[in-house]
Amino acid sequence: MAVYTQVNDDELARFVAGHGLGELRWCKGITEGVENTNYMVETTAGRFILTIYERRVNPRDLPFYLGLMEHLSAKGIACPLPVRDAVGGQVARLAGREAAIVTFLDGMSVRQPAARHCALVGETLARMHLAGLDYPLQLENALGPAGWPPLYARFCDRVEDVLPGLGLLIEEELATVLPTWPASLPRGVIHADLFPDNVFFLGDRLSGVIDFYFACTDMLAYDIAVCLNAWCFDAGRQFERDKAAALLAGYQRVRRLDGAERAALPTLARGAALRFLLTRAEAWLDTPRDAIVKPHDPYDYAARIHQHRAMTSASAYGLEG
Amino acid sequence: MAVYTQVNDDELARFVAGHGLGELRWCKGITEGVENTNYMVETTAGRFILTIYERRVNPRDLPFYLGLMEHLSAKGIACPLPVRDAVGGQVARLAGREAAIVTFLDGMSVRQPAARHCALVGETLARMHLAGLDYPLQLENALGPAGWPPLYARFCDRVEDVLPGLGLLIEEELATVLPTWPASLPRGVIHADLFPDNVFFLGDRLSGVIDFYFACTDMLAYDIAVCLNAWCFDAGRQFERDKAAALLAGYQRVRRLDGAERAALPTLARGAALRFLLTRAEAWLDTPRDAIVKPHDPYDYAARIHQHRAMTSASAYGLEG
Repeated sequence: MAVYTQVNDDELARFVAGHGLGELRWCKGITEGVENTNYMVETTAGRFILTIYERRVNPRDLPFYLGLMEHLSAKGIACPLPVRDAVGGQVARLAGREAAIVTFLDGMSVRQPAARHCALVGETLARMHLAGLDYPLQLENALGPAGWPPLYARFCDRVEDVLPGLGLLIEEELATVLPTWPASLPRGVIHADLFPDNVFFLGDRLSGVIDFYFACTDMLAYDIAVCLNAWCFDAGRQFERDKAAALLAGYQRVRRLDGAERAALPTLARGAALRFLLTRAEAWLDTPRDAIVKPHDPYDYAARIHQHRAMTSASAYGLEG
Repeated sequence: MAVYTQVNDDELARFVAGHGLGELRWCKGITEGVENTNYMVETTAGRFILTIYERRVNPRDLPFYLGLMEHLSAKGIACPLPVRDAVGGQVARLAGREAAIVTFLDGMSVRQPAARHCALVGETLARMHLAGLDYPLQLENALGPAGWPPLYARFCDRVEDVLPGLGLLIEEELATVLPTWPASLPRGVIHADLFPDNVFFLGDRLSGVIDFYFACTDMLAYDIAVCLNAWCFDAGRQFERDKAAALLAGYQRVRRLDGAERAALPTLARGAALRFLLTRAEAWLDTPRDAIVKPHDPYDYAARIHQHRAMTSASAYGLEG
């Protein structure tokens, strides 16, 4: 939740007009997006989301993210479409920062997903993977396995302040997961952060996918592993096999996993849990205890890791067929 | 900026349906309102603002605030209209707290108001004052002069941490303003917090007034004094007489100030500056230095007080006629 950069009303009116979007009717700072400043904007041309990029997003990577949204939109994926300005640019300066304006998507994220939501997520993820296969740009996954040891090194001296025993858990996972990490699974563009916050539903329909700012080029099955962690554990941190089975079946209706992907699924799921554990643990340490915005609880992912350790085949995750 | 209370999508859908507002289309946490949680909501019946009341608002006072919005709306003031639920209530429980849903107003607040905005604010303030004269409920101003000494006492031992010399400034103002505070000016409902954030414009029209959660029963001219402080100083904290003159002239086109109100205006302006200085200084001390949400700068109001001291007549504020 965040509005880090305040925008002047005159400046905003010029920005909107410069994108051919007519006159501004209203603008509200919204709390979506932890890392960027987001405004919801209505103009005489419709509703849009204005994003001002803060420190975490490297401006050099914006063409990858915004181009991807345009590519996927053109292939029928319900995602925000960047509006180009008068000279054809997707990014422009606003309030001293890089900014983009994209179309607004109806719908709401669900806080307690049911199996039917997981099925739609699996299906949409597979459609995104297929739609992204001919996307011409590449971007390395900065939070892939090569990034985990240096990320851990940034806070390993303080790791026990997060949770007693966490250092050992992380070190065991690094030692187990890295050597067995698959090397040659099918690759493509992955979302890499498809959490319930980033998926909208309208009634029984999945109405949109947002927040492509972790998207990158990596193994497609790793994206499924992220979703298993994000969608298939209950509020008590317990794995829910029916949801995982629905997600995997939804995915396979669109794109079937090959044998190597199936075999790698347990390792990928453990690795994905480790990736979120590492970033959450660091954020936890870097957030003042009395901050209004509470960081995510790293323990959620420690608990997932313990369960992943006991699931050693794709069928343990409910994969069938 | 704030979403302190998270709402479950199912719970929200029930709340909206219980108010006869049809089906939910989307819901976004918005950053308006420092003290409460606010969501913008679209349903098949239109757009609304859902407010969940946090600690600062006393639930006992909600009937005054919400009843006032309904009263003013009925008299043609552009302000949010609370939607009553199936049993006629304006307040209902949501996520364990009191909550209300009100109509959405188009328009945007201006960050750098011009004299034309000030004229519209003065005129609207006077229209609100007249419309409120027959509002049957009363609520004492908890931040009126009787509240200032105890408010100061809560942080006087730490006051120099805010700004060196601030203790002396506050003590001089209390000693000067309290004994000369007027006792018998025309009274009624005042907004008491009509800052630029709380007023929306659409083109050259004032399209709405929001945030009635400081409204109370007090001297009408005190509300003007708050506006002089809120609208008529530039970003460099310098008084701008043309804006004040426009605000006062706008007000007087609707409701003329009497002789006693004119005479009291300089004292009321100093008192209003002191009231905001006191609450901002306390908030400053109570906010961790590394908080994401920065408190307002108390120095803004110390600077105003120094200028008010030199303005000893209503005409110094640009009042004419």
